[in-house]
Amino acid sequence: MKIARFSHDDTIAFGIVDEEEHELVVLKADPMFAGYEPTGERVKLAEAKLLAPVIPRSKVVAVGKNYREHAAEMGGEAPAEPLLFLKPNTSVVGPGDAIVLPRQSERVVHEGELAVIIGRIAKNVAETDAADYIFGYTIANDVTARDLQQRDGQWTRAKGFDSFCPLGPVIDTDVDFEAGTIETSVNGELRQQGSLADLVHSVAAIVAYASSVFTLLPGDVILTGTPAGVGPIVDGDTVEVSVTGLGTLSNPVRSAS
Amino acid sequence: MKIARFSHDDTIAFGIVDEEEHELVVLKADPMFAGYEPTGERVKLAEAKLLAPVIPRSKVVAVGKNYREHAAEMGGEAPAEPLLFLKPNTSVVGPGDAIVLPRQSERVVHEGELAVIIGRIAKNVAETDAADYIFGYTIANDVTARDLQQRDGQWTRAKGFDSFCPLGPVIDTDVDFEAGTIETSVNGELRQQGSLADLVHSVAAIVAYASSVFTLLPGDVILTGTPAGVGPIVDGDTVEVSVTGLGTLSNPVRSAS
Repeated sequence: MKIARFSHDDTIAFGIVDEEEHELVVLKADPMFAGYEPTGERVKLAEAKLLAPVIPRSKVVAVGKNYREHAAEMGGEAPAEPLLFLKPNTSVVGPGDAIVLPRQSERVVHEGELAVIIGRIAKNVAETDAADYIFGYTIANDVTARDLQQRDGQWTRAKGFDSFCPLGPVIDTDVDFEAGTIETSVNGELRQQGSLADLVHSVAAIVAYASSVFTLLPGDVILTGTPAGVGPIVDGDTVEVSVTGLGTLSNPVRSAS
Repeated sequence: MKIARFSHDDTIAFGIVDEEEHELVVLKADPMFAGYEPTGERVKLAEAKLLAPVIPRSKVVAVGKNYREHAAEMGGEAPAEPLLFLKPNTSVVGPGDAIVLPRQSERVVHEGELAVIIGRIAKNVAETDAADYIFGYTIANDVTARDLQQRDGQWTRAKGFDSFCPLGPVIDTDVDFEAGTIETSVNGELRQQGSLADLVHSVAAIVAYASSVFTLLPGDVILTGTPAGVGPIVDGDTVEVSVTGLGTLSNPVRSAS
């Protein structure tokens, strides 16, 4: 099932995507907390503005260097344990929203990623139980100011700017992502391509590991790492990240005004 | 004015501290958002359990190596720009709550710090305007698993465990901290002592810098760095961080069960 968060007629709501009818079945409340009770209303997909499908109340946890070829292009190896960092919820934007290039950076890059959305409070979860704590999946772009990342050593600033975490377009609660691929294009030109089966640390392993450090709250998001092919984005570009079964997350890029 | 968040008779409320009467003047709602309207009720301080005075909806921003002597004891210099990192809101606990030593670490250390609480949405704030965006000040302990910090390179895991961000005991909205000192003791023995005038990057400079990266939301907390003298804490210890005018934040330490 695919779930969207959207605005329509100046209100924000959640809906189930009816892919045959190209409509949204409007829900009474956030299904993560309130289940799937419909209002009876339907909205045409073409008339809805899709929003980031979740705004984490706590954190976006991300994993660095989780594809071997990307670790190699960054000049290293994939770490033996997941390498965690945080992006603040203020960095989250939705599909179609602009990625704003900060004045502080000369080199901002795209990193297309599969994102996991936590659905239940999770602490010290066993890898074999991880699936029980996952609400669904979406697509993320772990936008990074590469020059600042290298200068600071800590990645917080480089990955934490406002608009540096596009999420969307929808949450899929039961996608079979392991057989899928993830692709990132800039202005229609393919830049990154990876198989989701090639994650060094699996989704279940990452959820287990992250939950051994932090209590994960419903709505927390975990970014699972980017495949090889990262590269710069500049004012006027359009970045698209696609994952099999999840659709495409598309965002324009513009310079800070 | 000193503001506490507290529990009493199974309810959580905010109150103004009446230091002469040792009482809390109970407020109708969170004064950061709703002003200072009293309910008419008073609660004796001795009968209230003080809680973390704020739970950030977005982030705890922290600054590394912001006292020269601490940077030196860590084997480096204070960076020319504030070195930012994030602690998740799930790491926040209140006064008297236990700091829980995770099984993953062999060396957890205390880092007593002055904490700034943001009161208004802040983005690209000028240093000269920073005071307008500050709601008040409290005390923090930037608890750190030093061995994991060194092993990971990224500080996220080492500084992000549950209970690794004690805050409290109260928020002071108008303390004159610049003339003050910060001291950290373990089991009554003084370990850290610093003058708040010795911050390499001032509070105003940090707020300006952080707001040039992230949008800061009301309730976001900024930790301003720790002075020299950091050291290990072990099961059974009690850590106390004191700041002139702000009181003492005391937390017991225990091993994970």
